[in-house]
Amino acid sequence: MVGIGPGSADDITLRAANAIAASDYVIGVATYIDQIAFLLRDQKVIKGVMGEEVQRAMRAIELASEGHAVCIVSGGDPNVYGMGSLILEMLATRNEAIDIEIIPGVTAVNAIAAVLGAPLSGDHVIISLSDLLVPWSNIEKRLELAARSDFVIALYNPRSRKRARNLSRCIELLKKHRLTAPVGIVKNGRRPGEKTIITTVDALTNYESTVDMHTTIIVGNRQSFIWEGKIITPRGYRTKYEY
Amino acid sequence: MVGIGPGSADDITLRAANAIAASDYVIGVATYIDQIAFLLRDQKVIKGVMGEEVQRAMRAIELASEGHAVCIVSGGDPNVYGMGSLILEMLATRNEAIDIEIIPGVTAVNAIAAVLGAPLSGDHVIISLSDLLVPWSNIEKRLELAARSDFVIALYNPRSRKRARNLSRCIELLKKHRLTAPVGIVKNGRRPGEKTIITTVDALTNYESTVDMHTTIIVGNRQSFIWEGKIITPRGYRTKYEY
Repeated sequence: MVGIGPGSADDITLRAANAIAASDYVIGVATYIDQIAFLLRDQKVIKGVMGEEVQRAMRAIELASEGHAVCIVSGGDPNVYGMGSLILEMLATRNEAIDIEIIPGVTAVNAIAAVLGAPLSGDHVIISLSDLLVPWSNIEKRLELAARSDFVIALYNPRSRKRARNLSRCIELLKKHRLTAPVGIVKNGRRPGEKTIITTVDALTNYESTVDMHTTIIVGNRQSFIWEGKIITPRGYRTKYEY
Repeated sequence: MVGIGPGSADDITLRAANAIAASDYVIGVATYIDQIAFLLRDQKVIKGVMGEEVQRAMRAIELASEGHAVCIVSGGDPNVYGMGSLILEMLATRNEAIDIEIIPGVTAVNAIAAVLGAPLSGDHVIISLSDLLVPWSNIEKRLELAARSDFVIALYNPRSRKRARNLSRCIELLKKHRLTAPVGIVKNGRRPGEKTIITTVDALTNYESTVDMHTTIIVGNRQSFIWEGKIITPRGYRTKYEY
């Protein structure tokens, strides 16, 4: 299971690139296959579609069981809303041990944090607003707890056409706890058409309709501030040092 | 600001490797300089020591202001307990704009998650137990909220000789909320001497003394389970699919 990093070809690690280059089969959705096209020589490529993760995982396990070196590629990191847990859970259910290596990658949140400046800095939470696999009530509870404390909050899968309401509910909740906190919105991070918006929680509703499933959002905490188009969350050095 | 990824040389991204190769100066602590030694040709190298982040940041800004291409390297990602926010905060304080690029890297938590299996999977929080720059009361409040909800919890800087108590307090707190949850401890992740322990919250005290500042810990949630020496946190596919 190989994490190929966010959008751009050169955010892949050497380890991931070598694994893909040395494999017999490469399996992934079209966007990710395109992203690693420069590593493809005579590997067999199986392109899947979003939403068919279970079928893709089964095919990968089947091919690996037959003795092939199979790379199943995830955007970002396989463990962060990727295929990691699905494949291991499947193997656990069947109690089938095959030789597996998980190769970590740069996540979308780390990539967009770099674009936005230094919004994460210290403690932070990663939350997906997709309620496809998790009940909304759980997500809302987590959001509420994160917003009440002083975590920086990163939001994955913030809005799809079918679940536009989730982001609206999330914004209402954030408004209660950190109305003026900076917010960074990055659409198509590290891909053609990258678009960055820097705003604050109280103005977030204005940008709601531009948010889609290719967008990642970072909400600063009460110490975060905006300078020269960058979001900065102080780490606390100012309490100890003069500069 | 360049994230060079966790411990091993080949977890660096192509973008980070290219930036280091093309720079005039490379600044970082000795461990990180050693990690990227294969990229050093005729760059000038400035080795710093842990705890002197402020001096290192000042030197980097000074050299960059003089027109040099300067790489300041962080283990993992510059935005995750790295130098990212410190440097931007310094520039903001002086209102000094220099041309900066932040290059993201694979974080320690994503690297050790890969070693442990698929413990993160979905929503998770990243917390540092170091109270050097942040009051312990803040850290404890965040831990409490994270443990009460169902976030997977990743712990950075879990224990130093001077702050051995922080981990003990953290364990007491975790015991109240998720006594049987799996815990993965990785010491020297992706470095020589890598050591992995898989246990549960109720037995965590037994391993306390082996934990140090080169250790990262992941605490599963109430759905996480252990199979064949791996921690797996289900993502929720079982609620929708048969496999």
